[in-house]
Amino acid sequence: MRNLKAIIEYDGSDYCGWQVQNRVQRTEHREQKKSIQATIEKILQKILQEKIRLIASGRTDAGVHALGQVANFKTRNKIPLDKLKRALNSLLPDDIRVSRLEEAGADFHSRYNAKFKIYRYLILNQPDQSPFLQRQVYFCPYALDVGLMAKAAKRLKGRRDFKSFCASGSKVKSTVRTIKNLTVKRVRCGYPDPGRALIEICIEADGFLYNMVRNIVGTLIEIGRGRFKPPELTKIALAKNRTFAGPTAPASGLCLMQVKY
Amino acid sequence: MRNLKAIIEYDGSDYCGWQVQNRVQRTEHREQKKSIQATIEKILQKILQEKIRLIASGRTDAGVHALGQVANFKTRNKIPLDKLKRALNSLLPDDIRVSRLEEAGADFHSRYNAKFKIYRYLILNQPDQSPFLQRQVYFCPYALDVGLMAKAAKRLKGRRDFKSFCASGSKVKSTVRTIKNLTVKRVRCGYPDPGRALIEICIEADGFLYNMVRNIVGTLIEIGRGRFKPPELTKIALAKNRTFAGPTAPASGLCLMQVKY
Repeated sequence: MRNLKAIIEYDGSDYCGWQVQNRVQRTEHREQKKSIQATIEKILQKILQEKIRLIASGRTDAGVHALGQVANFKTRNKIPLDKLKRALNSLLPDDIRVSRLEEAGADFHSRYNAKFKIYRYLILNQPDQSPFLQRQVYFCPYALDVGLMAKAAKRLKGRRDFKSFCASGSKVKSTVRTIKNLTVKRVRCGYPDPGRALIEICIEADGFLYNMVRNIVGTLIEIGRGRFKPPELTKIALAKNRTFAGPTAPASGLCLMQVKY
Repeated sequence: MRNLKAIIEYDGSDYCGWQVQNRVQRTEHREQKKSIQATIEKILQKILQEKIRLIASGRTDAGVHALGQVANFKTRNKIPLDKLKRALNSLLPDDIRVSRLEEAGADFHSRYNAKFKIYRYLILNQPDQSPFLQRQVYFCPYALDVGLMAKAAKRLKGRRDFKSFCASGSKVKSTVRTIKNLTVKRVRCGYPDPGRALIEICIEADGFLYNMVRNIVGTLIEIGRGRFKPPELTKIALAKNRTFAGPTAPASGLCLMQVKY
């Protein structure tokens, strides 16, 4: 039995997330979109002619993107890697691509073996929305003090209880995680939309609670707008209560960049 | 009567073009998409409470984008410019934005007064498609000799008959145009999809024939792939016959960047 590891990129705008989410199904009665997982599994099964179960490093929510999602699957098929990758990419829709495909050890598990993950959040911070970038950013036209946001972000680094930044109702044994890196900086879009004013927030941690990145970003935006002072971030974290933190930033700005093993 | 001039940006992927195209209606029986012009006119009419006719610098085809389309319209409404711009952008879909709005002289005409236009064509030149950039590029996985393309491009500069690069069946009095600048170079995408290998082709001319940019790009790609030698470009141009040039490059890579008056 081969165990194959795929690095996957996707624009999540038109999907319900990595997996079908019951949460969405229950609360919203609109048409259910396809999941990234089901879309890839269906094509893998067509090529490999057997039942395939894709195991990702973690689920990404509806509208969240990836440039470095990792997923593994087992197969008895002896198809060469390059041939399988080419077949997959020729059948996948243009908003999903497998950028790398390799043999993994028999015990490799995308989720259990993940040590660190890096997420990126992009804020378009200028008076007008960008038609070219709108699917990959959160458009925020208000003046944001990025220096203050960067300074405040440092307070969240390290090992601590992130319960205040975890979606309420989430069932996890422990809400303690370690943030290894958390940076906030102004950057510019080069191509395809030159000169756009972006703010890039990068978070590397050993694990993420449900909505943790989006709740941290939402809170940092409140600090950037002057609604919270940076020292309040320490108080918010110590409160271990979701209601103390800022709102959940929209999914469109979020992208899973890398999973480290 | 005020004459207002708008600079407009759009991702043309989900539109039938600036205007409804009879050409498309006649040949394809799929569902007709909305036009950019009708979408903006409808919202302008709602805000200004009068019939509005938007005159663009030129029509862009289905799937073609703009970062610097110029269009003017007349109105009796005395609404301040900034208020109108804000109202417009709040009602427009996210793939269309008015980036500037200003008073123009009574005689200003977006099309008749245009002196030069700059179009940009982006080719994604790497083994795999990019889910983030797919809507704004033409994905070409073949090895392309960009040095050769740039060298060949110089042969098209200046005033000449571009009949070989004009869609057949197009009815224009003269097919003579002046290409002021034509550059081909490798660039890298910064955000949102770092490191992607792009080729940027920029063309500035005093006017463009139907499909002229896309036919020139299609021919330059043939040169990059080694199917035509650069000197053949001179022969193709002299032939004044569309069948001598390369194929029409897809709409997705094309963007109207600037109109000079």
